[in-house]
Amino acid sequence: MLSLERMVKILSIDPGNRVIVSEPGVLNQEIQDAVKPYGFFWPPDPSSANFSSIGGNLATSAGGPHAVKYGTTRDHVLGIKAVTATGSILKTGCYTTKGVVGYDLTRLLIGSEGTLAVITEATLKLTPLPKHQSGLVAYFQDTNSCAKAIVAIMSLPQGPSALEFLDKHSLNLIRNRFSELIPTKANTMLIIEVDGSENELPETIATIKSSCNIDGILSIEHSTNPHDLWKARKALSPLLREIAPKKINEDVVVPVNSLPKFLDDLDKICTKFQIANVNFGHAGNGNIHVNLLIDPNKSDENSRAEACLDEIFDLVIALKGTLSGEHGIGREKRAFIYKEIDDPTLAIMKSIKNLFDPNHILNPGKIFL
Amino acid sequence: MLSLERMVKILSIDPGNRVIVSEPGVLNQEIQDAVKPYGFFWPPDPSSANFSSIGGNLATSAGGPHAVKYGTTRDHVLGIKAVTATGSILKTGCYTTKGVVGYDLTRLLIGSEGTLAVITEATLKLTPLPKHQSGLVAYFQDTNSCAKAIVAIMSLPQGPSALEFLDKHSLNLIRNRFSELIPTKANTMLIIEVDGSENELPETIATIKSSCNIDGILSIEHSTNPHDLWKARKALSPLLREIAPKKINEDVVVPVNSLPKFLDDLDKICTKFQIANVNFGHAGNGNIHVNLLIDPNKSDENSRAEACLDEIFDLVIALKGTLSGEHGIGREKRAFIYKEIDDPTLAIMKSIKNLFDPNHILNPGKIFL
Repeated sequence: MLSLERMVKILSIDPGNRVIVSEPGVLNQEIQDAVKPYGFFWPPDPSSANFSSIGGNLATSAGGPHAVKYGTTRDHVLGIKAVTATGSILKTGCYTTKGVVGYDLTRLLIGSEGTLAVITEATLKLTPLPKHQSGLVAYFQDTNSCAKAIVAIMSLPQGPSALEFLDKHSLNLIRNRFSELIPTKANTMLIIEVDGSENELPETIATIKSSCNIDGILSIEHSTNPHDLWKARKALSPLLREIAPKKINEDVVVPVNSLPKFLDDLDKICTKFQIANVNFGHAGNGNIHVNLLIDPNKSDENSRAEACLDEIFDLVIALKGTLSGEHGIGREKRAFIYKEIDDPTLAIMKSIKNLFDPNHILNPGKIFL
Repeated sequence: MLSLERMVKILSIDPGNRVIVSEPGVLNQEIQDAVKPYGFFWPPDPSSANFSSIGGNLATSAGGPHAVKYGTTRDHVLGIKAVTATGSILKTGCYTTKGVVGYDLTRLLIGSEGTLAVITEATLKLTPLPKHQSGLVAYFQDTNSCAKAIVAIMSLPQGPSALEFLDKHSLNLIRNRFSELIPTKANTMLIIEVDGSENELPETIATIKSSCNIDGILSIEHSTNPHDLWKARKALSPLLREIAPKKINEDVVVPVNSLPKFLDDLDKICTKFQIANVNFGHAGNGNIHVNLLIDPNKSDENSRAEACLDEIFDLVIALKGTLSGEHGIGREKRAFIYKEIDDPTLAIMKSIKNLFDPNHILNPGKIFL
């Protein structure tokens, strides 16, 4: 019997047309490995790249730290083959990098969380692999100065290829285990990555560095080694898993200009409900992973965390944000979708669901209550 | 009474979030002018930028020469407000650069040619304005060598920001009027533009230039002045309007690797049906404007041109191409859409049309027969 690895496969690579065609079970990392020799990559970069399939990436319109420069999955798919719940075999989009024939069913299926059709093949658009990366690590004395630096950096046309934020709780967590990684006085941190040709990087680094020259910055250091640049961020995830047997892990997004207010109000809300929290994420998109940590030994902690989350979601919507930048709705956020999407728009989404899957047999119970 | 210019307006510009919000009647060029001072642009660049509105750009998912690097309209819109034919007011997408809540109705509406809803507001995502442009002008002794150069250039990770092709008929047309513009022996031409930081351009130019070092190239010259780079292309459009009182103007797309075969077979088909033709366009996307010139004094010319077009479309589909990269289906190509989109996929598109516009009152008679 063939192993799963042998049964799912990349179907073709066409560098002149900048396209790779693949079955959906192929892993994100396998796509990257296949196209790297040609000098290309496929931009979606979820942290699950080593074990998430491109079918899963399409279902959620996955993205990661580099979405700030390169966008998410929906920006990098040209066409799809899929089967609806009624057995219709659809062929959407095209094989070319331009095409405007008929309705865009490709992107209707991307991010639909498996509720409209089963994807059987994907035609992915490739992007030139940047030749060089470099970066900056910046520490701030408080959240507000860090949030202002994020706004300053994102207002520059020379954007970063990644802009990651770690809050005071994240830094404390890392410092407790690896004291040498985080300076004593640091309250918040930015990891700033830039990419491009070797000749352009020094200017980009200098421009971003000078935009961070604001009250409250403690230090900003050039970091040419990717391992050094990302080590604090990489240390965080396992620590989070360790300390919190139960946590609510969100991925809200607010407009970048609203990050100072959002982070300030987030702190107030968590204090009000006495919920321990750790917050970090893709600040260049305004996409913050809010983690509410729940102590199962405290009987009322669950209900306080739920009330806290509800207020955080209200804050996000009041700031013109969105409830999810990466995870989607799934089951967990079905009860909240109405906060973001109004009734007429939800109604037409449900009608589309009924067209593709009238008996609700595809990923039942997801997205809509 | 207010003039039209005063009634439609840009609603907000938010450089930190890289967003501009606009009413749909604002012209593409007005958007560009508004965001340029911040160091950004909105990438869709139809040649109609001076008089086409962003509502129109959204309806057709407009693109132009720079789509080869920057994509088309659907890659640069975050959210839409729109009214369906049943009076439902929809608010799709989000205001942030990341968001995966609910189905992607934004891109379902983009490119739907006004057949699903009336767009009333658009939230557009901005892109850093490249600081410098440079270019190359290359001439070839025949179509095949030129097509091979296109494939070689597009296989390079360092892509051009525009890659325009002019065929022998285009060059003859220009040469007849402006003999100094086109060298005597030149049969086909490429206009190659690159953009980026001043420090990276020389390397990109050198790499692209060396990839064009193939049999059949007559000359390749560095052109640092945008006016010089584009002057042959800009001379062509008015000449085309002059010589052909009637022409069929298509915008087919084939995979870049198939351009050598497509251009060769296109010539054979036009010769077979004795239809004069002029072909040029966005070669980096495989997007060729095929112009069939019709002499109204020849009684059977119309029917020969139609038969010729039918065979060209069959060729495009056989090469895994698409019937339209920019113009869409409209009325003219309704009878041909079945060549590209199969019955089950067309059926679901028609069902979606019926959801949004059950009485077919929005742009009636477009896309579907």
